[in-house]
Amino acid sequence: MTPAPQPATLDPLLLVTRDNHGVVTLTLNRPDSFNALSMALMDSLKSALIELGNDPSAHVIILAGSGKVFCAGHDLKEMRAETSEDGIRRVFELCSQVMQAITRCPKPVIARVHGIATAAGCQLVASCDLAVAEAGTRFAVSGINLGLFCATPMVALSRAIPAKAALEMLLTGQFIDSETALRHGLVNKVVAKGELDAAVDGLAQTIAAKSPAAVALGKRLFWRQREVPTGMAYELACDVMTRNMMTEDAAAGIDAFINKQPTPAWKGR
Amino acid sequence: MTPAPQPATLDPLLLVTRDNHGVVTLTLNRPDSFNALSMALMDSLKSALIELGNDPSAHVIILAGSGKVFCAGHDLKEMRAETSEDGIRRVFELCSQVMQAITRCPKPVIARVHGIATAAGCQLVASCDLAVAEAGTRFAVSGINLGLFCATPMVALSRAIPAKAALEMLLTGQFIDSETALRHGLVNKVVAKGELDAAVDGLAQTIAAKSPAAVALGKRLFWRQREVPTGMAYELACDVMTRNMMTEDAAAGIDAFINKQPTPAWKGR
Amino acid sequence: MTPAPQPATLDPLLLVTRDNHGVVTLTLNRPDSFNALSMALMDSLKSALIELGNDPSAHVIILAGSGKVFCAGHDLKEMRAETSEDGIRRVFELCSQVMQAITRCPKPVIARVHGIATAAGCQLVASCDLAVAEAGTRFAVSGINLGLFCATPMVALSRAIPAKAALEMLLTGQFIDSETALRHGLVNKVVAKGELDAAVDGLAQTIAAKSPAAVALGKRLFWRQREVPTGMAYELACDVMTRNMMTEDAAAGIDAFINKQPTPAWKGR
Repeated sequence: MTPAPQPATLDPLLLVTRDNHGVVTLTLNRPDSFNALSMALMDSLKSALIELGNDPSAHVIILAGSGKVFCAGHDLKEMRAETSEDGIRRVFELCSQVMQAITRCPKPVIARVHGIATAAGCQLVASCDLAVAEAGTRFAVSGINLGLFCATPMVALSRAIPAKAALEMLLTGQFIDSETALRHGLVNKVVAKGELDAAVDGLAQTIAAKSPAAVALGKRLFWRQREVPTGMAYELACDVMTRNMMTEDAAAGIDAFINKQPTPAWKGR
Repeated sequence: MTPAPQPATLDPLLLVTRDNHGVVTLTLNRPDSFNALSMALMDSLKSALIELGNDPSAHVIILAGSGKVFCAGHDLKEMRAETSEDGIRRVFELCSQVMQAITRCPKPVIARVHGIATAAGCQLVASCDLAVAEAGTRFAVSGINLGLFCATPMVALSRAIPAKAALEMLLTGQFIDSETALRHGLVNKVVAKGELDAAVDGLAQTIAAKSPAAVALGKRLFWRQREVPTGMAYELACDVMTRNMMTEDAAAGIDAFINKQPTPAWKGR
Repeated sequence: MTPAPQPATLDPLLLVTRDNHGVVTLTLNRPDSFNALSMALMDSLKSALIELGNDPSAHVIILAGSGKVFCAGHDLKEMRAETSEDGIRRVFELCSQVMQAITRCPKPVIARVHGIATAAGCQLVASCDLAVAEAGTRFAVSGINLGLFCATPMVALSRAIPAKAALEMLLTGQFIDSETALRHGLVNKVVAKGELDAAVDGLAQTIAAKSPAAVALGKRLFWRQREVPTGMAYELACDVMTRNMMTEDAAAGIDAFINKQPTPAWKGR
């Protein structure tokens, strides 16, 4: 393999590792602060997502947290040190940009969730394309317990799970367990302790083995077409599917299928 | 406590009671008519919701029904007595205003559901922010059985549960049981007979103990942000969260959390 | 009964049968190709849906597949034989028209699903108003396995099931089983082998026994009102419900209910 261009994020706040199949793992690395999303960490995460979106050797992104928990939300000490309204606004705007960088990134992003995912940490899970949780993980949008309604997390959460389930979490601030998260659709899968890495990697490798060009076309369209009326969504989807069908990958893949040959090596990026 | 301003709705059609923690219970009180929503009852309910929305001593609203059932929908005899198209239209418009008064009210509204909730009664459940049902409760949008498709209930129902589940209820007119309602997300919780009041009150007290200012900001935004594209939803949420963060309640709540002190008394209203 | 006007689709690609209660069954009839949706078959299906939509004697439509499976998606050989971009685009546009003909048809359409439903076959299931599956049926949007992301199926799928569940199917191309499809809301019911026809017919007869005029008003509104903000949805629903209330069917149905008489014979069409 050609050595892949490394993202500039060698910042220890965010660990970046990659395997030989284009699976890149971004690890929130502030374990002593429960991976609280400081401004610096959010900046690193946003930059990494944008870079990886443009990196042809990156196919799938895993978002993980180091230490005992996935992510406990914003860095409240840092946030309280910011006294101006403009400064506070910048925190939430940067956070919203990070979340939208996940859905806008053409590469699928899988949350690897363990321990707890609260407030903006729960929002990360809701914003990712896919999520796998370890049994015992607990999820909450608990800002309301501190007098701060989780308004920005609500945007992602209310688009991932049913309305009443989202409102219960937002208004009570209470935790839900991993089985409830699965039932509501907040995560795709719950696995036993000790099986989390294998499950996340299995899912990532499955997707990394697909045509990257087709995955990128589809992932981007998914979030866009949900926001428009069905008629317009079909127009966008016809465009994308026509473009996809004209690629070498689709031609080779379909021909192999018709002729009962093995899946070809994908060429599109 | 300062004596709270009483809503004008001492009308026996709608009972209004309140406890010492800002939990106000509105009880549909036409038990002999299965709490059918007459024009007068809908007027009372709409007025009460608007008044309570502006009442700083009201924090959470419970919507209940007296007698054997929660609510069986419109008052069909009254509706049939109305022969003009304009008169009929006024019935449905008033009903739609009541339902939107629930979502527009800045105070969370919890449905306390028992017996049956049919047609506009099922719409009330779907429209409330949260709902708790007694085991054995049955739900239907049964107008189609009488030749009258539940079009206005559909608006709330199809925003609360999955599409095919909603269409099955609307097209067949058949009842679903409380467990199915839970699975579809129409209610948050199903509890055993005899435990309904405790469960509803427990949920109400949990929310009544939060910062009312933060709850009001969040509740109103919830329903608004769902109707706009994600980018615009994030803009609205950044505004709300910034305003919330600048309140005394959020400052005190976060500081108490950081310093491991008890939750402060909330000041915002 | 007056003999019903027969749709022109005596084309053996699509079998059209009808019973004495207005239940019309459309059967995809290319069993040797797993009912692959060739251009000719899609044309037939679209025409049949439009004709039946205008046929006052048709009340409910069942969509079925002959042979071992429901439908395996597009006819890939035919699609590969089409080399021009315009030609390819026409395939997806016709497919999108078929799917929207289902939701636009004023008669409810029930998918009778067995064996497998993949790619555009899975999209048919997602697009139908209701779906009943035989236990053991498997569902996938598997184009990604061939380098062709199921972009047009995504439009229907992502409007029927939760976001993360849809993305998992689209990105992995993997099958889900009938129980998972039920849990996600892709189908209404799963029944044991040998009970599929009885279950589908039972559901169809239940709906065929309702006022056709009321069903048509409601079905059409369902898909339209989901795409607009709640306030506008209520305006549309008030219009429809007022019109419905002014029909002879609603008057007779409500009067029979009030007077505890049997359901009347419906007159509206």
